[in-house]
Parts: sequence; C-alpha cells; structure tokens
Amino acid sequence: MLNNKYYTQDQHGPYEFYALGDFQLESGEILNNAQLAFAVHGKLNEAKDNAILFTIMFSGTSKNMEHYIGAGKALDPEKYCIILPNQLGGGLSTSPHNIDGSQAMTGFPNISIADDVAAQRKLLTEYFGIQELQLVTGWSMGAQQTYEWAIRYPDMVKRAAPIAGTAKCTSHDALYVDVFSDALKSDPAWNGGNYTEVHSCKLGLKRLANVFALMGCCTEFYNKEQWVKLGFGSMQKMLEGFWHAWFQPMDANALLTQAKKWKSGDSSKHAGGDLVQALKRIKAKTYVIAFEQDMFVPVKDCKYEQKYIANSELIVIPSLMGHFAMLGLLEEDFAAINDTFMSLLSS
Amino acid sequence: MLNNKYYTQDQHGPYEFYALGDFQLESGEILNNAQLAFAVHGKLNEAKDNAILFTIMFSGTSKNMEHYIGAGKALDPEKYCIILPNQLGGGLSTSPHNIDGSQAMTGFPNISIADDVAAQRKLLTEYFGIQELQLVTGWSMGAQQTYEWAIRYPDMVKRAAPIAGTAKCTSHDALYVDVFSDALKSDPAWNGGNYTEVHSCKLGLKRLANVFALMGCCTEFYNKEQWVKLGFGSMQKMLEGFWHAWFQPMDANALLTQAKKWKSGDSSKHAGGDLVQALKRIKAKTYVIAFEQDMFVPVKDCKYEQKYIANSELIVIPSLMGHFAMLGLLEEDFAAINDTFMSLLSS
Repeated sequence: MLNNKYYTQDQHGPYEFYALGDFQLESGEILNNAQLAFAVHGKLNEAKDNAILFTIMFSGTSKNMEHYIGAGKALDPEKYCIILPNQLGGGLSTSPHNIDGSQAMTGFPNISIADDVAAQRKLLTEYFGIQELQLVTGWSMGAQQTYEWAIRYPDMVKRAAPIAGTAKCTSHDALYVDVFSDALKSDPAWNGGNYTEVHSCKLGLKRLANVFALMGCCTEFYNKEQWVKLGFGSMQKMLEGFWHAWFQPMDANALLTQAKKWKSGDSSKHAGGDLVQALKRIKAKTYVIAFEQDMFVPVKDCKYEQKYIANSELIVIPSLMGHFAMLGLLEEDFAAINDTFMSLLSS
Repeated sequence: MLNNKYYTQDQHGPYEFYALGDFQLESGEILNNAQLAFAVHGKLNEAKDNAILFTIMFSGTSKNMEHYIGAGKALDPEKYCIILPNQLGGGLSTSPHNIDGSQAMTGFPNISIADDVAAQRKLLTEYFGIQELQLVTGWSMGAQQTYEWAIRYPDMVKRAAPIAGTAKCTSHDALYVDVFSDALKSDPAWNGGNYTEVHSCKLGLKRLANVFALMGCCTEFYNKEQWVKLGFGSMQKMLEGFWHAWFQPMDANALLTQAKKWKSGDSSKHAGGDLVQALKRIKAKTYVIAFEQDMFVPVKDCKYEQKYIANSELIVIPSLMGHFAMLGLLEEDFAAINDTFMSLLSS
C-alpha cells in the first residue's frame, strides 16, 4: 500500500465509505473488500425522492465537483440530497495503490464503467433506500456513467445530463486514451506498474499532463492567451501551475485503471452492441451537454448519440476552455452549466 | 554518419544537390559544407519566368509532393519549372545524421525557417538565375516557408499559396511540437541524441506517430471508420500501416531539428515582431488554404493571418483527413487542391 497523502480527507474530504464487500465485477473477477468513497450534500427526504447523483470524471474526486453545489445554485442542498460517488480505482475508493495483497498495483482487476454504476446502485438502493433519482449527471467519464445509468436502469433515472462524454467510447477517444496512457508509461520509474515509492512517476505524469494540455483547452484558448484570465503570466506557467500541478500528486496506476475503464466504456452492450437501440432505452428527460471546441469529445459525437434519445435536447455551451469548461474556472462557464442544470431540474 | 537507406535517391529521387558552402545561419552559427537537396520538374524557360517553388513539410521530402505535378495538372511541367527544395535537416539536405565531424548529431546547429528560405533564394538566384516566381506554395512547415518568402522577398513572389500553416507558429502548435518531440525523446534509445545505430529509436518514433495520428485526421475520420477508404481493415491496421510505417524509417535527430524549426517559425521578425505589419508586406496574390477540421492548424488560425494580406482569399477545403488532406490520399482532396492551384495560377 502506498500512502499517497493526496487521496485523503484532508485534501478531498469530507467523504464517507460504503463497504461493497467482495464485489463481483463484470469481468468475472472479484474486487476484494471493496470500498466506495462518496460525498453527500443535503439530506434525503422521507419519501427518498429528492436525490441527485453526480458522478466523477477521470482523475477527479467528489471534491472537484463541489462548486456546483450550494444554496441558491441549481444543485441546492436545501432541496436535494446530492450524492457524489468516487470512481473505483479513482484514488479514494478502492484503487491499485490503496489495496493490500494480491490485488495491489499490477494485480488490480479490470474495472468497467458498468462496475462503477453497479456499485453506485448498491449504495443508493441498499444503503440509502433510493428508488428514483431526480437527476443523474456527470462530466466526461462521469457522462459515461450517466449514460450507463440511464440505459441500464431507465425507470430509476427521471432526468439525465451527460456532459461532454459518450455512451460508447469513440475510436478517436480510445486513441487519445492510448496516447496519454503511453505518455505516462514511458516514464522508466513506472516500471511496468511495479513502482514502490509514492510519487515515483513524476516525469510520466508531466508527459500525460502535457497531452491533456494539448487537447484539453481549444487552440483558440492558447492563441488568445486566455491563461491570463486564469491568473498565469505565460503558457509555460499555466502548464506548470495548472496541468502539471493537477496530475503530479496522483497515483499512476490509479490513472491507468481509470484510463482502461474510459476506453472500454460501452453502454451499447445492454442492447447486444447496438448503440442506437441502447440509447432508445433511455426514459429520462435528457440534456446532452457538449462544450463547443471540445477537442476530445467534439459536439458532433454528442449530437450523434443525442438524436436517438426520445426526450432529449442537445445543449452546446460555448467556452474557450473546451473540454475543461466543466471546471468552471471562468465564471461564465459555471453560470452556463448551472443555468442548464436549473432548466433541466425545473422541467 | 549514419547510413540511413530511407534518405536516398532510391527512395526519394531523383534529386540533385546544390552546394551552399559554409552557410551562414540566422543564429550566427555556420552550417559546414551545406548541401541543399532539390528536385526539378519541367524546364526553366529562357526568360527564367516560369518557375514555381514548392516547399516541403515536416518529415517530408520533395518526393512526397510529386503527385501534384504532371501533364494536365495545375503544376504542369510542360509549362512550369517546378522546384522542390528539401528542408535543411530534413534528411536529404544536410542533416544531423548525414554530416561528419563536430556538427554531427547533437552538434547540429540551430536552423530556422528563415535559413531554409535564404538557402532556397541562393539556389534560385545564383544557380538558376531566377528573379521572379510564378508561385510559392507549401504545406504545413511548407506554408511557414511560403510566408517567409512572401514577407521577406515580396517583389520576387507573384503568387503565394500557404497551405495549412501559419506565418508565426501559434502557442498551441508550439505545445503540439513539444508533445510529439517529447514522445520521441522518451525512447531511452534516443539517448539524448547520441544514438549510434540507424533505426535505434523505433519506440520513440512509434509514440510520435501516435501523436500525429491523434491530431492528424479529425475525430470524425475515426468515428466514421474512414480508414477503410485508405485500404485498412481496422484503426489499428491504419496506425501500423500508415502512421507508424511513415515515421519509423526516419532519423530521430532529423525530425527533432525540423520540430525545433517549426516551433520557432516567425516571419513577424521582418516587421520588428509585429505580425500584422509583416503580413501587410506581402504583395503576392495569395490564396491562404486551410483544411476544415484540421486539429493543429485550425481554419481560424489561417483566417486570422489571411485578413491582413492585401490581395488574398481564404480557401477552406473540406476533408475528413484534416491536416493530412494534403497527402491527397482521397481523390477528392487531391482534386480540390489541384483546382485551387489552377485557379490561382490563372489569376
């Protein structure tokens, strides 16, 4: 077990753990003594019908989406019980670096988006006793989980807002995952996943961060020197102060576990591999949210899936932050996303 | 000297050499006994006023653009004398791997786009006796050379067609160059540039190739499985049969020399760093050609520069091949580009 201080209550709390026990995975493997880390904002009402599920993106934790929650915001904890489950393998939940024994590090089993959703359902139904969700939402890999929810449990999901993500990982996105994973693995310190020190893979994490920087914001963001708006004096300072700083405290194998999950994300399996039929299963009122100039989940990819969802709209949010508009670093991005949640929740 | 059989007459000929002698570089350094490799199609007429200069992109050679030249095509060798100068450091001209002594490999001096253009001007004026060019064109790094020509020698360039490239390397493009250069350098066999065997850096070249695959064609290309049109049965087969196969025979240091040149490309220096004033120097009738869905030289970047060129038009060519439309692998891409050359040459 590697004691990485990044993945702690101190950095990402408060959060709780739900014990999944020996958890059956889609691959047939068992994740031993699995723990699902989750954060809760607000209280579940007596009818247990005021819950919102907010799933988490690649490299993120429940903490990173917290700014969307607050009094007067669309996700108001006075009104809703907002539950943010961390990904299995995401660092806080059971992950390669925080498990002991044969499943540690390279022994960590294959996890899928479907496994995350199955674990979340167990938490919601068995621990909370929830049978209906007012909204399921999530960004990027969170959108993959949102689609999996809406397709797999159509009767539980009243509204859905997959943000800048797809129900089935596209070929180009799979290539993107390969390129950034390989950038990380190129660090000799990664050592085939068998590193023994926390923060061994600084070089690989920096390389991965640069690939995210390349595709994460749009070209216009850089050409218009928008880093100034984020408080950075130069592009190099933004690379270091934002992208490198974001990834460098993380665990390499946790990121690679999430990357594999991202690449294999495919909710079409619930309709025998037919994506169109899978999307037609969705009963939720759905806002498919895309970010204009998103380079790894382009609007076109979101639109392609949205058109098969019966009760849906495509909402395109303009931002030079591209895929990373969701971080809400620019006030107008936050406002546009919050307004969209507001509109969906009042429909 | 590494005897790389890829950079030979057998693979890329016929081409000739022009001896530049000890060639003064913009950096102040001298490139010892420099050789400029160039190909010629057609004959220079007696008035020496039928010449077209076609400059070469990153990783390319004069051979790679040959398909645009032929009887009945816009670049007709019956009518024009078409000269294709290979980049310094491009593999055929003097390059890190084919020079002996102190300038070999890591001792290779810094070369700029301006140096290539100065070498080309020497060839055109001193060897051929040319004072006016009917057209200067080039793709990507070739567009950088085209801009440098039109801005630096406005009276020599009658028409210009910079294709999917910019007069000044953008911030995002510079980041792109860093990411693919770092992918190459991550190969331990690169050894800080001090490899001693031809084809040492297979792993790094494969990583670089994957970054090109990621950004080279647009996401829609992959999602619509357009690799089938290029004769590949799967995305993986296209990665191997096209992208890896393209880069793997090349010399790592030659590519890195070109990459540094790409990143530092900046014709604004002819107007004291003022890009707008530099572009206003251009007298040529100019078609700025952009490829729709080009992910590393987006239409917006081309349009930004085009609007400051007095006698110019922006031509946007749609193709799912994105930046790599120029290879003319799809017949419609070739036809659109050829038609554009035709239109410009008849104006």
